[in-house]
Amino acid sequence: MNITVWNEYRHEKKNPVVTDIYPDGIHQVIAGFLKNSDVNVKTATLDEAEHGLTEDVLTTTDVLIWWGHVAHDEVSDEIVQKVKQRVLEGMGLIVLHSGHFSKIFKTLMGTSCDLKWREAGEKERLWVVDPTHPITEGIGEYFELDHEEMYGEHFDIPVPDELIFLSWFEGGEVFRSGVTYKRGNGKIFYFRPGHETHPTYYNKNVQKVIQNAVKWASPLKRERPVYGNAQSLETTKGE
Amino acid sequence: MNITVWNEYRHEKKNPVVTDIYPDGIHQVIAGFLKNSDVNVKTATLDEAEHGLTEDVLTTTDVLIWWGHVAHDEVSDEIVQKVKQRVLEGMGLIVLHSGHFSKIFKTLMGTSCDLKWREAGEKERLWVVDPTHPITEGIGEYFELDHEEMYGEHFDIPVPDELIFLSWFEGGEVFRSGVTYKRGNGKIFYFRPGHETHPTYYNKNVQKVIQNAVKWASPLKRERPVYGNAQSLETTKGE
Amino acid sequence: MNITVWNEYRHEKKNPVVTDIYPDGIHQVIAGFLKNSDVNVKTATLDEAEHGLTEDVLTTTDVLIWWGHVAHDEVSDEIVQKVKQRVLEGMGLIVLHSGHFSKIFKTLMGTSCDLKWREAGEKERLWVVDPTHPITEGIGEYFELDHEEMYGEHFDIPVPDELIFLSWFEGGEVFRSGVTYKRGNGKIFYFRPGHETHPTYYNKNVQKVIQNAVKWASPLKRERPVYGNAQSLETTKGE
Amino acid sequence: MNITVWNEYRHEKKNPVVTDIYPDGIHQVIAGFLKNSDVNVKTATLDEAEHGLTEDVLTTTDVLIWWGHVAHDEVSDEIVQKVKQRVLEGMGLIVLHSGHFSKIFKTLMGTSCDLKWREAGEKERLWVVDPTHPITEGIGEYFELDHEEMYGEHFDIPVPDELIFLSWFEGGEVFRSGVTYKRGNGKIFYFRPGHETHPTYYNKNVQKVIQNAVKWASPLKRERPVYGNAQSLETTKGE
Repeated sequence: MNITVWNEYRHEKKNPVVTDIYPDGIHQVIAGFLKNSDVNVKTATLDEAEHGLTEDVLTTTDVLIWWGHVAHDEVSDEIVQKVKQRVLEGMGLIVLHSGHFSKIFKTLMGTSCDLKWREAGEKERLWVVDPTHPITEGIGEYFELDHEEMYGEHFDIPVPDELIFLSWFEGGEVFRSGVTYKRGNGKIFYFRPGHETHPTYYNKNVQKVIQNAVKWASPLKRERPVYGNAQSLETTKGE
Repeated sequence: MNITVWNEYRHEKKNPVVTDIYPDGIHQVIAGFLKNSDVNVKTATLDEAEHGLTEDVLTTTDVLIWWGHVAHDEVSDEIVQKVKQRVLEGMGLIVLHSGHFSKIFKTLMGTSCDLKWREAGEKERLWVVDPTHPITEGIGEYFELDHEEMYGEHFDIPVPDELIFLSWFEGGEVFRSGVTYKRGNGKIFYFRPGHETHPTYYNKNVQKVIQNAVKWASPLKRERPVYGNAQSLETTKGE
Repeated sequence: MNITVWNEYRHEKKNPVVTDIYPDGIHQVIAGFLKNSDVNVKTATLDEAEHGLTEDVLTTTDVLIWWGHVAHDEVSDEIVQKVKQRVLEGMGLIVLHSGHFSKIFKTLMGTSCDLKWREAGEKERLWVVDPTHPITEGIGEYFELDHEEMYGEHFDIPVPDELIFLSWFEGGEVFRSGVTYKRGNGKIFYFRPGHETHPTYYNKNVQKVIQNAVKWASPLKRERPVYGNAQSLETTKGE
Repeated sequence: MNITVWNEYRHEKKNPVVTDIYPDGIHQVIAGFLKNSDVNVKTATLDEAEHGLTEDVLTTTDVLIWWGHVAHDEVSDEIVQKVKQRVLEGMGLIVLHSGHFSKIFKTLMGTSCDLKWREAGEKERLWVVDPTHPITEGIGEYFELDHEEMYGEHFDIPVPDELIFLSWFEGGEVFRSGVTYKRGNGKIFYFRPGHETHPTYYNKNVQKVIQNAVKWASPLKRERPVYGNAQSLETTKGE
């Protein structure tokens, strides 16, 4: 299995608070905890040629992880279309935190993907609401993040195919923090936590969820269905 | 309630078979069976200025009905964005037949919306699979159309929020023919039948379904939720 | 439309705190705010003959509201089967608060319907997560109940057909507080608030939700589908 | 992984047509194609003590497969309750064909589970409508069974969590032939084909679907959530 971790990689270079937490970038930390003998992990970032998402990289990627925030608009529409095409062909997509506002997520959802937010370093508690789901394996009934950005409802997404985590925030809001969607042959998981000024991707529960999600989102060995004009399978009388 | 019936209105002007069935256009027939004392029905077509979907028309439309086929590409991206915005604000949208490939439907779905098709004038039988749904009121267990274009699975749409009709086709295919979605504050219904060379919109069952759908899709009296930066509702400790 | 409000009606007769709040029973307060010129409202209670749910009452009830808590086991299995049959035939069912553990709700769900709970008179905030839903009409983005019993996840219910409200609790939990299901021809709404020691059913938002839910759950004019042995609709070749 | 294949095992002993096809019982054929180095497969039948579903067998079963038809009523309510409890604890359950009317399926669904049927040995074509689903791996766009019993809509089940296969029948009906549900910690798959007078369980596509379903339904390593009275996780002000 080939995983590509894509990161905007801007905050880490400009904001010393973020540099301290993620000196080599969020993508390196995520790649680090995903690496094992069964999977191949690459990284790609916005400022590389074609954002690091060349034809070759995309074609061979089984699961793509996406973190972006301040530079969503700098992602080229052409690359977004290629990523979308790969999702429809079966590539798994895991969208993290502020990636809710990325072009790729918005174009796959069809809604504004807007939400309420607040940077107050408050407590978040994520509750498991689907104990059958493989993405929750190894996670207790809930887990806590002492300091996170708040994302609150209403979250303007389509009705999720599956609702896995619900967040409670100290400041009074709730949020659908782990949701899945199917698009074409591809599976998508959106996972809320991961503000750049907090060490969220070092949290063992967050890591476990993303590890599980990668397995869940990996493509089947299946062709895309055949679309277009089709011969009759049975005799028809016509008009 | 204000309904706007939008039609591409091209086949009716060029193909004598279609002209014979719909001399004034598909939109006029649909508008005709929707008119009653409770609703205001307008029509709009592709070749009008702004495709007949001016700011004023869109702002006052409660439910928009969409029929298009050969000229999807001629619909301006700007108008599509305005229609999408109105759906997110609560306007109901009913997409008919070949409208599955319209820009507005594809952008709201996030998938290719592709399918199998065949023009053989074969029999279609639509089965009700959700007898709780108001869109099925007055419809029996199934109804038949003697001659229709075939649309077959796989239909590349997101998992529907509700599945209402399933079609059986004489030539051996099945299709999810009546499906609903929520996007933002708006409700969407896709309804399969309505090939231009068959008198489908004169069928009483088809008319009843569309009449029901208009009622179901009509907007609530509700503002869009407030998005963006939000003050805390409870005291938080912060970092 | 005929509405029947069913109440166990025990706490009100034994616990002075509850008697003070609901001197004539929870059912009378609910019946009171549902009455208007369009609807007929009756009440029924556990200690009446057949729990007040005679054949005649059930047959003519369009929407049944259910509140029970300490005496679920005293509801006869025979009556539960009759209520279930009526739901499958199309009668709407609105289950309130501790009704999550009623025989009728558990038999329609197929799960334990268990949850976490705490009686600490804490604050509950209910967030609207489906702004398209008629049950939310007239409700803001959220509403608060200053003092309520806590119900927390995991709530052991089937995946809801629609998720409408999510609760935030002061003590750190979240809950799927407004959910809908379809069973047979019938529509079901479960709504969390309503602990007997708090004046919850006097709250205007709670009243509005229940008023909306009654409209939403009212039956279609539709027969049950025909089940059993069926003649072929097309010629088959057989073996 | 431990799989138990449960079969009523009556038709095979009484009807020579069925005996010819399944001389050792349907369960032995299913067990046969499920056996491999990774899984342990047992069988159990109605006429064994406790229907072969002793405490010990149930506790160690990861996925239970169920085939029943003429003797649903002979299955003891006590065993049904134990099986249900195990599903809620996480055991996978695969219900085949006429098992739609088994006590265990009906109690987990909460509906009548009724349908239309016809024994005419007609052609069935199963279409894949969810190409993302692991249960479809290795299956083409559709597969055919030359001779099967017809099951037709309306199928009186709750809205499926996932809809995987849709059947087309020669006689004019359609059916939701592959559907999934979550109940408690357990995953359920209902799969339509398998009438006893046809050699359906020798079909390679049918076998592949059931092999895939067993993998999909296998339990997570997860405890049941804790239910009941819960201490506050945060300081509350109370009344």
